[in-house]
Amino acid sequence: MSAVQAKQTIAETMREIGRNARIGANALKVATPEQKRTALLTAAGALNAHRKQILAANALDMAAAREKGISGAFLDRLLLTDARIDGIIEAVKTIAELPDPVGTVIAEWDRPNGLHIERVRTPLGVIGVIFESRPNVTADAGALCIKSGNAVILRGGSDSFHSSRAIVDCLLDGLHLAGLPVECVQLVPTTDREAVGEMLKGLDGNIDVIVPRGGKSLVARVQSEARVPVFAHLEGLVHVYIDRSADLDKAVAVTLNAKMRRTGICGAAETLLVHQDVAGTHLQPIIAALVAKGCEIRGDATVMGLVPEAVAATEQDWRTEYEDAIISVKIVESLEAAIAHIEHYSSHHTEAIIAEDAEAVEKFFNGIDSAILVHNASTQFADGGEFGFGGEIGIATGKMHARGPVGVEQLTSFKYRVRGNGQTRP
Amino acid sequence: MSAVQAKQTIAETMREIGRNARIGANALKVATPEQKRTALLTAAGALNAHRKQILAANALDMAAAREKGISGAFLDRLLLTDARIDGIIEAVKTIAELPDPVGTVIAEWDRPNGLHIERVRTPLGVIGVIFESRPNVTADAGALCIKSGNAVILRGGSDSFHSSRAIVDCLLDGLHLAGLPVECVQLVPTTDREAVGEMLKGLDGNIDVIVPRGGKSLVARVQSEARVPVFAHLEGLVHVYIDRSADLDKAVAVTLNAKMRRTGICGAAETLLVHQDVAGTHLQPIIAALVAKGCEIRGDATVMGLVPEAVAATEQDWRTEYEDAIISVKIVESLEAAIAHIEHYSSHHTEAIIAEDAEAVEKFFNGIDSAILVHNASTQFADGGEFGFGGEIGIATGKMHARGPVGVEQLTSFKYRVRGNGQTRP
Repeated sequence: MSAVQAKQTIAETMREIGRNARIGANALKVATPEQKRTALLTAAGALNAHRKQILAANALDMAAAREKGISGAFLDRLLLTDARIDGIIEAVKTIAELPDPVGTVIAEWDRPNGLHIERVRTPLGVIGVIFESRPNVTADAGALCIKSGNAVILRGGSDSFHSSRAIVDCLLDGLHLAGLPVECVQLVPTTDREAVGEMLKGLDGNIDVIVPRGGKSLVARVQSEARVPVFAHLEGLVHVYIDRSADLDKAVAVTLNAKMRRTGICGAAETLLVHQDVAGTHLQPIIAALVAKGCEIRGDATVMGLVPEAVAATEQDWRTEYEDAIISVKIVESLEAAIAHIEHYSSHHTEAIIAEDAEAVEKFFNGIDSAILVHNASTQFADGGEFGFGGEIGIATGKMHARGPVGVEQLTSFKYRVRGNGQTRP
Repeated sequence: MSAVQAKQTIAETMREIGRNARIGANALKVATPEQKRTALLTAAGALNAHRKQILAANALDMAAAREKGISGAFLDRLLLTDARIDGIIEAVKTIAELPDPVGTVIAEWDRPNGLHIERVRTPLGVIGVIFESRPNVTADAGALCIKSGNAVILRGGSDSFHSSRAIVDCLLDGLHLAGLPVECVQLVPTTDREAVGEMLKGLDGNIDVIVPRGGKSLVARVQSEARVPVFAHLEGLVHVYIDRSADLDKAVAVTLNAKMRRTGICGAAETLLVHQDVAGTHLQPIIAALVAKGCEIRGDATVMGLVPEAVAATEQDWRTEYEDAIISVKIVESLEAAIAHIEHYSSHHTEAIIAEDAEAVEKFFNGIDSAILVHNASTQFADGGEFGFGGEIGIATGKMHARGPVGVEQLTSFKYRVRGNGQTRP
């Protein structure tokens, strides 16, 4: 950083980053599919070639984190290994080979006057990504934005700064070789929190969307302060409902997987609702499977009577995303009661029904307004990769523009192309 | 209004309207296509049956407006006649017969693990429409929202209050007969401007989108103050570019129509750009046609030299949406220069190219990021009805969610339906 730049305030630095991002966006908007693919495949190659530098940068971050007394899951999220770099490279390659969304005709039709109208995908512009300690978000978000023709401003956590910098350098190699400006991907050079505040104000109109990736306090701050649209979910208070028509084996296997495969992800189940008609047959085997895997059971009065392992659930339990090996369990008298409970308590992320009765499934699918509804499968499939999107920049629970896993298609807008042969409007 | 209600503050009244709207939205969300169609066809019948009451209500509004000294275009927009009521009825019938967007499968695919994923349209929830004097907006907006499964809060101008009330009463007849709650369509019972401020704050999360319909000062206020998403365009600074490959007849006919058919609508052309290679052949006939219709010409230096009728354009002219019989005209040295001018000055609403060279058209379509791009046809086709949407609640120039004419499809969100047979995530 030159002496002149060093004198800039953070607000000035961020505004300059915004203006540069718009320059990048204008170049990416007209980049060819081959240019974007080349940029990403080259970046993947650079990530492989610069493994040592990336691991060395990560070692700096890890040492600083340990010195600050950080440990446990946070430290594990920060860690890069050769295997994790392999995963990052694979993700960038997968995104490189996705169909290019920009220019895709989403719909087209003819008018009686002979006009032909097409609705085609266009980039959104500039995406601001605010994330915490996972260095892989740097590569995922950068690659998804390049593929969808958007410039990206990456603001990583201070703990992962060196790792992110090393990864961004590889993305810049790719942009350079593809003849695209390096302004397409910018890493905010300061870890001061003021930089986040500036991004949330939109950098003079130079950020079109903000995507927060991290814990609830980060997402809550972004959602309440942002003056630009936000793609995010504050929490995943996910429900599994066992219908009276549920197959017992599916009920046990899906509930166990939905809760216990990984308890810390947003698609993990938090509340189990069981129809009273199958409480006698299905509840015990499901609970037994969960308890055998170390899950704590918090039940309503009926569950308490049936399950000796259960502790009493309080009102707060129905509102809690545990992100841990705990599940709240309630017996409901009907499908309608299950729907009402979910509509009342859900964070509208993902909900599952286990049922063989097709009519019950349709009622569940129609009656619940969550981003993802699942029939006879685990809620942990709520993921852009599992949806076939080749990756996701996040999962959105809002209803505007993007909803559910946000992949390259959801990072686009559209415009209309109208073709005539001299038509005038009467 | 009861004595108790009369004691409510405007903020309290509006919050209650918000809560009621959510009740309406929850009912509409699960309404059948037939219910919504019935509601609208019944409303159309009621509009016809209650013509006299509507005209009488409008006469009250007109008398009050005249007393306030209102005249000209504003008074004309306020006026209802039998023919205009016919138009309103036709519009409601057209919307009634549109395909129901809710539940439509937008995309579906299978995953290698056997999961079948569908993306289906869902209503957005509650739409707040803030409009000025045109009573027909009451019927259009109400009908489009009902059809798309959204509750609507209508806040009309004080000048059209009685007319809007009479029209809303007909919509309520339709809802009632279809077994839908009257909370689906609410007219704000006060014309106090504080009510608009409350709507812009979102009524405790009970407004999902705001649509302003009216003059620039209304739209600007809504865009700057709204805490919820807004579908709007501040202005339509629309360009027509005459390429070096343009057919002369098309250039004359389209430019004349784009500027002069109706000068006050947002799709009307404001700036004409002409390639220097055809300035000698095409400029004069186009200008002559415009001048013959009473259009004032404001030109750059080259135009001033070629066109005796022209007055000198200032920098401000390239930034001005005249909404009047005035056009600014500039000679450009290339297609690229035309694109650069448009990208710099445009409001990103609608732009047209007149050209026979397909490559020039593609460059224009790819290089300009406006909601609607038109080839060899009038920019005045920028309209939901002309697009085949059966109506529009407005035209949006933002890139989030809706863009261009906002019809019933753009008033929806989507959710995912995932169907399995017991799949768990490895």
